[in-house]
Amino acid sequence: MSTTSDAEAAVEAAAQSETPQKEKMVLIAASGDLDKAWPVLILATTGAAYGMDVTVFFTFWGLGILKRPDAGITGDDYRQKLMSLFKKGSPDGLQLSTMNFGGLGSKFMKDLADDKKVASVQELLELAIGMGIKLWPCQMTMDLMGLDRSQMIDGLDEPAGAGSAISLMKEASISLFI
Amino acid sequence: MSTTSDAEAAVEAAAQSETPQKEKMVLIAASGDLDKAWPVLILATTGAAYGMDVTVFFTFWGLGILKRPDAGITGDDYRQKLMSLFKKGSPDGLQLSTMNFGGLGSKFMKDLADDKKVASVQELLELAIGMGIKLWPCQMTMDLMGLDRSQMIDGLDEPAGAGSAISLMKEASISLFI
Amino acid sequence: MSTTSDAEAAVEAAAQSETPQKEKMVLIAASGDLDKAWPVLILATTGAAYGMDVTVFFTFWGLGILKRPDAGITGDDYRQKLMSLFKKGSPDGLQLSTMNFGGLGSKFMKDLADDKKVASVQELLELAIGMGIKLWPCQMTMDLMGLDRSQMIDGLDEPAGAGSAISLMKEASISLFI
Repeated sequence: MSTTSDAEAAVEAAAQSETPQKEKMVLIAASGDLDKAWPVLILATTGAAYGMDVTVFFTFWGLGILKRPDAGITGDDYRQKLMSLFKKGSPDGLQLSTMNFGGLGSKFMKDLADDKKVASVQELLELAIGMGIKLWPCQMTMDLMGLDRSQMIDGLDEPAGAGSAISLMKEASISLFI
Repeated sequence: MSTTSDAEAAVEAAAQSETPQKEKMVLIAASGDLDKAWPVLILATTGAAYGMDVTVFFTFWGLGILKRPDAGITGDDYRQKLMSLFKKGSPDGLQLSTMNFGGLGSKFMKDLADDKKVASVQELLELAIGMGIKLWPCQMTMDLMGLDRSQMIDGLDEPAGAGSAISLMKEASISLFI
Repeated sequence: MSTTSDAEAAVEAAAQSETPQKEKMVLIAASGDLDKAWPVLILATTGAAYGMDVTVFFTFWGLGILKRPDAGITGDDYRQKLMSLFKKGSPDGLQLSTMNFGGLGSKFMKDLADDKKVASVQELLELAIGMGIKLWPCQMTMDLMGLDRSQMIDGLDEPAGAGSAISLMKEASISLFI
């Protein structure tokens, strides 16, 4: 009888731990290009709309997606400052990885998206925050680039490390590096 | 006895739903570069050869892989037309993302592949279609680029959206964004 | 009583099959850029530190990460040789995919990483080998590029194909294409 009740308890615990838990999606956003930021945020918001528990881990150039438009030149070091000057980032300042033509291609693509009712990166980020999608900036690459939280948009979660991203991906139904 | 038959029914249902169902691979092809189209199609066809049920979701620049060689300038809008002029796409017109040198690097790589008996993108696409691999063009980015089905190669599945790709990835053993 | 022992046997079998088997992480490293080699090796070594069984499959440009610094011009064919001349590779010779500015941007980033105590690609590779992470070079793309084992760093596993990578990914908790 004790084994039966143990088994029942195990089944019940399993049911309790699994039933209310949403399936997880984890996206690693490592690029600051417009043509990567779009799929990151479209997959994230669509996943959340489909009931998934979504986390996006922004690392390296991907941190550029989260920079405030008014952040200006960032970093303490001349090398960080130079990089921030040439790779400005910010949700509405992203450029295509190809076909950019000094910014004209990116402008064309953003205008086309607007005409076709495709949400902008800025709109998708606001939507993502509103939907409760967790946006994690990577602590190590923030340090590398000399970025601090005050230079990044509101609504982000605490900076995290690769270990946290890995722990989450181990439990996720969908994990993508974009 | 009713519990026994219920249990038997459950086991039978599980057997029916699991036994004949192949493991799924879902690839998101978001780049139109030769050095991305190759791994997409090599993984897809190898996966199918290993008995997996493979779906490739082509989005954004990845749609270029599916353009007919004779599609010419595509789109209704001058911006779409300009982009299609500079980023021609089509299975045999893809270029390397690096080391392209105005097309010479890509020509070298295709010739080398030919010498080494590595199948071309065009051959791999035909193989993929013959193996029953599902090739889904992304509806939203088709609209964005002004592409319609008549400008794309034969053998594709119906255009789909991010939600369909996500539903499929949730059940897949392997999901990669390439 | 027989059901009890059946349940116990099942639990024991589950324990035996799960306890000693580590969760698997498979990374496909297809790029030879510094800003991709870093996440590959940081995720790999962090995964191993978290107790995962990690395999990295290096293919196409990703093979460049594994080239010996003294390999010089590689390949038998003039096209392979030319490519190796312009895309040198080697753990300490990698360049950023963007913001490279003729190598200056990459030098800045490597110096910054050094200042911030972020391990270099060379150090991470040595760490990975020491941690028992399996590093698989892709046979097909080695042939395509004309690379042989003697031109690659020590500590690698036997060259493998896409089929082996797929078989491993099917069992993995985390599979990423980087």
